[in-house]
Amino acid sequence: MSEDSHWLEEKLLQLNLVDTMDQPGGFTRLSYSPEESRSHEAFRKIANELDLQVTSDEAGNQWAVWKVDATAPTVAVGSHLDTVNAGGGYDGVAGVLCGLAAIKQMKDQSFTPKKNIAVICFASEESARFGVSTIGSKAVTGLLDKQDLETVADGSGVTIKQAIEEFGLNWETIEQAEKPTDSLESFLELHIEQGMQIENNGADIGIVRGVACPIRLKVTATGMSNHTGTTPMDNRKDAFVAIAPLVNFVEQEANKINDRQEVPLVATVSTVQLKPNAMNVIPGEVELGIDIRSVDDSVKYELADLIKSYCSQVEKKREISVKVETLVNNDSVFLAPQVQGKLQRVSEKLGYKALLMDSGAGHDVMNMAIRWPSGLIFIPCKEGISHHPKEYASIADLQKGSNIIAAYLLTETGDDDEDKDWSNQSS
Amino acid sequence: MSEDSHWLEEKLLQLNLVDTMDQPGGFTRLSYSPEESRSHEAFRKIANELDLQVTSDEAGNQWAVWKVDATAPTVAVGSHLDTVNAGGGYDGVAGVLCGLAAIKQMKDQSFTPKKNIAVICFASEESARFGVSTIGSKAVTGLLDKQDLETVADGSGVTIKQAIEEFGLNWETIEQAEKPTDSLESFLELHIEQGMQIENNGADIGIVRGVACPIRLKVTATGMSNHTGTTPMDNRKDAFVAIAPLVNFVEQEANKINDRQEVPLVATVSTVQLKPNAMNVIPGEVELGIDIRSVDDSVKYELADLIKSYCSQVEKKREISVKVETLVNNDSVFLAPQVQGKLQRVSEKLGYKALLMDSGAGHDVMNMAIRWPSGLIFIPCKEGISHHPKEYASIADLQKGSNIIAAYLLTETGDDDEDKDWSNQSS
Repeated sequence: MSEDSHWLEEKLLQLNLVDTMDQPGGFTRLSYSPEESRSHEAFRKIANELDLQVTSDEAGNQWAVWKVDATAPTVAVGSHLDTVNAGGGYDGVAGVLCGLAAIKQMKDQSFTPKKNIAVICFASEESARFGVSTIGSKAVTGLLDKQDLETVADGSGVTIKQAIEEFGLNWETIEQAEKPTDSLESFLELHIEQGMQIENNGADIGIVRGVACPIRLKVTATGMSNHTGTTPMDNRKDAFVAIAPLVNFVEQEANKINDRQEVPLVATVSTVQLKPNAMNVIPGEVELGIDIRSVDDSVKYELADLIKSYCSQVEKKREISVKVETLVNNDSVFLAPQVQGKLQRVSEKLGYKALLMDSGAGHDVMNMAIRWPSGLIFIPCKEGISHHPKEYASIADLQKGSNIIAAYLLTETGDDDEDKDWSNQSS
Repeated sequence: MSEDSHWLEEKLLQLNLVDTMDQPGGFTRLSYSPEESRSHEAFRKIANELDLQVTSDEAGNQWAVWKVDATAPTVAVGSHLDTVNAGGGYDGVAGVLCGLAAIKQMKDQSFTPKKNIAVICFASEESARFGVSTIGSKAVTGLLDKQDLETVADGSGVTIKQAIEEFGLNWETIEQAEKPTDSLESFLELHIEQGMQIENNGADIGIVRGVACPIRLKVTATGMSNHTGTTPMDNRKDAFVAIAPLVNFVEQEANKINDRQEVPLVATVSTVQLKPNAMNVIPGEVELGIDIRSVDDSVKYELADLIKSYCSQVEKKREISVKVETLVNNDSVFLAPQVQGKLQRVSEKLGYKALLMDSGAGHDVMNMAIRWPSGLIFIPCKEGISHHPKEYASIADLQKGSNIIAAYLLTETGDDDEDKDWSNQSS
C-alpha cells in the first residue's frame, strides 16, 4: 500500500473517531451533537498538520484554508462529518477526507497554487436529528431561516437552538455564517454514490449533472383511540387500518411512473408515528412521512397529487380525517456545466471512466450551487449500501477521488493550462 | 344531589389528583410512577377518614381493611388507580371509589359486618408503561415471575426494577406480596364497561361471566435500510412495504370470523416501531404488535395461525425475513357462577336491570379468580370510550355501583339472609 493510501486509511479512522472501520453498530454523529463536534476537532487537527488556517464560522462549519494571497479568489471543496443514527463512516467523511488528501498531494508535489484553496467541513448535513438537512451549507448560502427553525426539536425534545448553543455557537448570530458571492470562486463536493449506477455501468466515478431534491409529505390520519378488548370490530375508527394501504399505494404508483418514463422516480413511506402506540389501545392517530424524489420535478408533483387524491378517498370511505401537509418541496438543482466539463477532462487525463449521472440524494452542493458554480463527484460504495453500518468505500476509490480533486484543483489554481502533464497524478 | 353523590364526586377528584374531571389532556398515572404513588396516597387518606386500617404490601398494593374480627374471614373488593398515557379518570378509579363508597354507606347505616372487609387498590394494572399488565394482582396471587420481569424496561429505558425501587419498594421482596388462599374468602371488582353493551341492551349494569384474555403477537419484518433517494424502486428491501398489508389482513380475517360465529373476536395491530424511522432512510425493520381477544380461545388461536401463515407468505414473496413471537397467551378466565348469582339477586332487589356479559378487557379480577371465588360488575361509560381523555361515567352510575357493592357486602358479611329489606339501599 502506498504512503498516500496509508495516510487516507489513518485519517479516515481519525475523522470517524475509531480504531477500526469495522463497527457493527455503525457510526452515530448526529447534527450538532458532541460526537459531531469531536469529529470536527479531528478535522482541525489534520488541517493543522497540513499547515492550513482553520476557522469555524457562526453555523459551526469548519474552514481549512490554504491561503496564498489575500487578494486572490478562493476555490472550495468539501462535504460534512455528521451522520445519521447508526449510519456509515463514508457518507460525508469521504468528501472531507479526499479534499484534505488532495491538498496533501499538492503540497507533497511542492505545488504553489495561484488562488486560495478552502476545504469546508459543513455542519449538520443529515436531517436525522432535526428533520432539517444541510443546515451548515444553508447558512453559508443565506438559505437558513432562523425563525422557521426556532421551534424545531429532536426526538428527545431538545430544540435546535439548544443543541446549537450546547455546540458552542450563538443562536442569534447563526445567520452571519452567510458568505458573499465574491468570497468564493467555485465549489466542488465529493461524496459516495449511495447507489449502484457507477458499478452497473463499469465506470470508476460519477460526475453529477442534477441533484433530485425531495418533496416530503406528512400524512396525518385521525380516528379514535379506544380499548382493543372492548371495542367491537364494527364500531372502530382505527386510523392505522385506514391509512396502512397508503404504504403500498405509494410503491405501486412510483413503479407505474417508472414503467412509463426514463428519468427515475423514488418514493418511500419512511416514517410512522402511532398514537398512543400501546398494545391495548386502538390507534387513534397515525402520522406517515413520505419522501419523493426525481430530477424530473413534474413526476414528483404527479405522485404527490395521486397521494392527496388517495387520502381524500380514504377520508370518504372510512370515518377518519386525513390531512396531507407538504413539509419540503425543493425543485431539483442542476450543477454548473462548465464544472462538469472540467471534471470530465480531468478524469479522462487520469484514465478514469466517468459516468454522467444524477443524484437521488441531496447534498451540501445543492445549496452551494445556488450561489457558486459547483460540481459533485461520486465515488462507488459497496452494493450501494448507505446510511447503514455496512456502508463501505475502498481506499482505492478514495484514492481515485483524491486524485481527481487534486487534478481539478491544479487546473483551477495553476497556470490555467488544462493540457499540462497529469501522468504523475495517478497512483 | 344527595350527600352520597357529593361524597362520590369529591373523592373521584381526590383519587384523580384534580380539581375538575374536565381534563382535555387526560389522566396520566403510569405504572409505578410518582403519579400513581400520589393517587395511592389519596386512597390512604380517604380510607383513614373511613377508619379503615391501611397497609401497603411488597408489590405496592394498598389494602384498606375494616377489621372486625382477626379470626373471621375477609371479603375483598377493589380495582386500581394507575392509568394509560393520557387516559381517562374512571378506568380503575371507579372500582376503588365504589368500594370505599360502599364501606361508607355501611358505616353510615351503623352496620357491623361479621367478617372483615378489604378494599384493595392494586398497583400497576395497565400495561402502557412496561408492556406487562396487572402486576399488583399477579403478585397477590403468586403469578408474578420476578426473573421474567428483570430485563423489562419502559420506553425511556427505565427498568421495572428501577421503577419499583423508586416507588419505595424492594425488588427482592416483591414476590412476598403473595397471599395464602385462606387470607381471603372472595373478591369482587367493579369497573367501567369500556364498551356499549349495557347501553345497547337497555340495562343498568353488567355482570361478567368470562374475561377474554389476549394472545399478543410481535411481528418483526427485517429488510434492509438504505438511502431513500439513491436506491431504485426495483432494488429495495423495504420492510414497511412488505409488512404493511398485514394491518388490513388482521382486520379482514377478524371480520370473517365474526361473520361466522356468535362469540365476538377483536383483533388490532396496535403498535408499530420502524427502524430507523428517518425521512431519508428506507425502513429496514418494522415491529408490529398485535392484540387478539375473545372469550372463545379457539378463535384466538385460529387468527394467530392465520397471521403466522400470512407472514410466511410475505417472507417467501419478498426478500424480507418475518419473525412472529407470542408475547402473551392467556386463556380466558371464567368467573365464579355463585358470585354471579349473588350479584344477580342483589341487582334484582335493588331494581337494577343486569346484563350477563363477557369482558373484552383484562382486569385484576382475572388473576384473583384463579385463587378466590370472584366477580366483576360493569357500570356503563359514555359511548364506550375508554383509555381516552373523554372517558366518562356518571355519578348516578357510580352511585348504582356503590349500592350494588354495599348490598353484596351486606349479604356476604351480614346474617347470611339474602332476603332482608333492601329498600333503603337505592338512592
